[in-house]
Amino acid sequence: MEKTAITPTRVEDYPQWYQQVIVAADLAEMSPVRGCMIIKPWGYALWENIQQYLDKRFKATGHVNAYFPLLIPLSHLETEAKHVEGFAKECAVVTHHRLVPDGKGGLKPDGELEEPLVIRPTSETIIGAAYAKWVKSYRDLPILINQWANVMRWEMRTRMFLRTSEFLWQEGHTAHATSEEAIDETLMILDLYAKFAEDVLAMPVIKGAKPCFERFPGAVDTYTIEAMMQDCKALQAGTSHFLGQNFAKSSGIQFLDKDEQLKFAWTTSWGVSTRLIGGLIMTHSDDDGLIAPPRVAPEQIVILPIYRNDADKETVFNYCNNLKIQLEQQLFYSKELRVHIDKRDIRGGERTWQWIKKGVPLRIEVGMKDIENNSLAVARRDSSPKVKQFLNMDMFVSQAVNILKEIQDNLFNKAKEFRDAHIYEVNSLNEFNAFFAAELNQDKGFVSCFALDDVIIEEYLKPLKVTARCIALEQESSNGVCIFTGKPVNKKMIFAKSY
Amino acid sequence: MEKTAITPTRVEDYPQWYQQVIVAADLAEMSPVRGCMIIKPWGYALWENIQQYLDKRFKATGHVNAYFPLLIPLSHLETEAKHVEGFAKECAVVTHHRLVPDGKGGLKPDGELEEPLVIRPTSETIIGAAYAKWVKSYRDLPILINQWANVMRWEMRTRMFLRTSEFLWQEGHTAHATSEEAIDETLMILDLYAKFAEDVLAMPVIKGAKPCFERFPGAVDTYTIEAMMQDCKALQAGTSHFLGQNFAKSSGIQFLDKDEQLKFAWTTSWGVSTRLIGGLIMTHSDDDGLIAPPRVAPEQIVILPIYRNDADKETVFNYCNNLKIQLEQQLFYSKELRVHIDKRDIRGGERTWQWIKKGVPLRIEVGMKDIENNSLAVARRDSSPKVKQFLNMDMFVSQAVNILKEIQDNLFNKAKEFRDAHIYEVNSLNEFNAFFAAELNQDKGFVSCFALDDVIIEEYLKPLKVTARCIALEQESSNGVCIFTGKPVNKKMIFAKSY
Repeated sequence: MEKTAITPTRVEDYPQWYQQVIVAADLAEMSPVRGCMIIKPWGYALWENIQQYLDKRFKATGHVNAYFPLLIPLSHLETEAKHVEGFAKECAVVTHHRLVPDGKGGLKPDGELEEPLVIRPTSETIIGAAYAKWVKSYRDLPILINQWANVMRWEMRTRMFLRTSEFLWQEGHTAHATSEEAIDETLMILDLYAKFAEDVLAMPVIKGAKPCFERFPGAVDTYTIEAMMQDCKALQAGTSHFLGQNFAKSSGIQFLDKDEQLKFAWTTSWGVSTRLIGGLIMTHSDDDGLIAPPRVAPEQIVILPIYRNDADKETVFNYCNNLKIQLEQQLFYSKELRVHIDKRDIRGGERTWQWIKKGVPLRIEVGMKDIENNSLAVARRDSSPKVKQFLNMDMFVSQAVNILKEIQDNLFNKAKEFRDAHIYEVNSLNEFNAFFAAELNQDKGFVSCFALDDVIIEEYLKPLKVTARCIALEQESSNGVCIFTGKPVNKKMIFAKSY
Repeated sequence: MEKTAITPTRVEDYPQWYQQVIVAADLAEMSPVRGCMIIKPWGYALWENIQQYLDKRFKATGHVNAYFPLLIPLSHLETEAKHVEGFAKECAVVTHHRLVPDGKGGLKPDGELEEPLVIRPTSETIIGAAYAKWVKSYRDLPILINQWANVMRWEMRTRMFLRTSEFLWQEGHTAHATSEEAIDETLMILDLYAKFAEDVLAMPVIKGAKPCFERFPGAVDTYTIEAMMQDCKALQAGTSHFLGQNFAKSSGIQFLDKDEQLKFAWTTSWGVSTRLIGGLIMTHSDDDGLIAPPRVAPEQIVILPIYRNDADKETVFNYCNNLKIQLEQQLFYSKELRVHIDKRDIRGGERTWQWIKKGVPLRIEVGMKDIENNSLAVARRDSSPKVKQFLNMDMFVSQAVNILKEIQDNLFNKAKEFRDAHIYEVNSLNEFNAFFAAELNQDKGFVSCFALDDVIIEEYLKPLKVTARCIALEQESSNGVCIFTGKPVNKKMIFAKSY
């Protein structure tokens, strides 16, 4: 067996491998606060690139940003019963507004609040209350607002990026005069998310509707993008909810329509979070660490100068500086290339492996011999660490963007092939049970089968620790029979073990 | 008296005028949560522009972003005694992690935490604990990290943007191997802030050191940028702290230096917040509403199409679309112009006044007659609302950037002239008392005088409700006598009533 940079490997222990990739790439670490993580600069840069892309798309589709309070009064949460049922149970509650000495050299809470406040687990209720004030007439609609924020859910079992008590996200909240317009918005955002996941994160997703028993609490319809990780588990990577008039009714968002009738608005909400980074890690990384898709990589190219003495050092640094300047003039998806020269004085092997583990798409080595030949050594993160290609420098500068595009496409295609090879059509409950029951099954994956969109099928899933992921939007209607109930249905549903 | 868009005017009731400008420009509103505001899209867009500029400057000076937890364990706060004294007293305390039915149809907190958690009022302690883990050797230094985040201080008296319980800010936290390097960082950031305030917000500031009794709790030196509002009160617009080894000692940030000695690091912290928006409003706005400096204005040019019937409407809209495209090709400080066409079907007067109140630097009117003459009507927000200039369209397109620069410069110069005309040199305690005692004094302003940097002078200030703002960095040393103590000093100090 070859030695790998990450121990254990994916095959040996997938969950532990995931944690070790995060450590090796210096993406994040758990903090002293239960369930909360510190997102370190390399991990946060991934989030900034995600933010930048999405923010631009949200604005291009007519949305504006705003900011609503972190804390929600208890009475606001009580207005939407189903919503509380699903959300507000495990959350951080602020009860005091002061600290005073406890008499033992420490501090204790003081100044009890008349009404406790909850740190937002999501902002439907507080934003709904604001929209109720803002909306009077059909002229005030639509409202198309997005918020970038931190939210908090008191999770019992946490895992970095995938499930943490505090996480960062964006939450869109829109209000419309008609049901049709709100549904269009919900689906437009779903498409935007899917395109982002596939084009930017190189993460293939299935767009679908959640079955009724997996909907967001209070939603009429919840749409999702579902991705397959390398252990064949499903990751819900983003959701878009059509809330009907439910939240408008509980918050009182009413408007005088053109026909002079007072009506409740139709609302939507949608979000993606730092969980996407977990998805990105688990989709692309290998036993040597992170593989960052070029479009979100914090640095796309790292230049590693190689020299023996101070005289050479200056020559090599100058050459590298010049190379960096030339590369930064190249545009990759309309943006300047992100290029870094690692001038640190550490061992070459250690330096190279740090960048491999951090997943930088291209590593360039430049030494005196290369300068003589006007060449350089190129290593791609999507190849074996040992493979280097020697290229003429000008050739490389003119080809760098194409190579990065090739890497981006390779990562997507590889992930898509893997996913498609692990979706199984199943035609009976026996087959279904056998597939998921086999714990050491080599045929792990998603199962697609006819199934009734009804909570009664959940009883077949729970013992297997399997969840219904979605009813894919892109499928033909056909006559089928639910494998659980024997009832006639015309759509297939996707099932999987999941994060 | 002419009728103004804002009632009351600045002269009639300055604090109330300020609130009304915020309402009229639709920048923000108070939320149902005590002391917390909702930052509405027009206000948030100002913050986004501030963020974008600063973030770019921070990165250009070697900083990276990261994210640390919102909640701080009580035990962390107890480590830095002075810091707690100054900060942690009034803060939001999380004591429970669950809600359960209260038996009366409502909810109540449940699941008491073993250790209460505090919503960060600032992050020195939690970030210090992380740096203590990360730093081992001089090779790990400097650490240059910034965080964009929300923070919370339980304020008794709140005022939108200026002082709210929750606010948005950036906080830089750096650790260095030497005192000199940390001091250089502190002052470099102070310069960066001053340049930003003056060049981008058009808000003149005085760079200075806080007297010892006004320092950040736990800091060795606190530097500030101080601005004068139109009511002559001072606003602390940003601070940069040299923390010496205080926080490194309480957090345990130690490193093995080149000389093999174990040493404590030298740290800094620095921040600006959404308070800058309050400063911007109070520096430039007038009795007709907000005046947004072009460099941060959410829209720099608004185009107002004028037409009588549907046939004209199409012609005018086409002309406006074309004008917008041409304007957007112009670069203003290396960025595309932000241009908006207001196509809403509302009364022309109402529409125009909305944009005046929102402070858009340039309003362009285009009607059928203008199209025939290939001209347009230009109104500047820094002129009277009645003044319009008719310009040839091509001429305007080529001149738009220059006009915006002129407005930006005008706003700065006007504010600077006002400020400089309201700084008074005072040579005795009698003069000092007389100046500030006169409540209806027409000579309101800043007072500059010789004063001892010692807490004993505070007793002279408190009865007058005056604060020591700073010891300006840009002043000659000279032999003087403290007006309060009679002791010899060589620097003048600035005093003012303040926000």
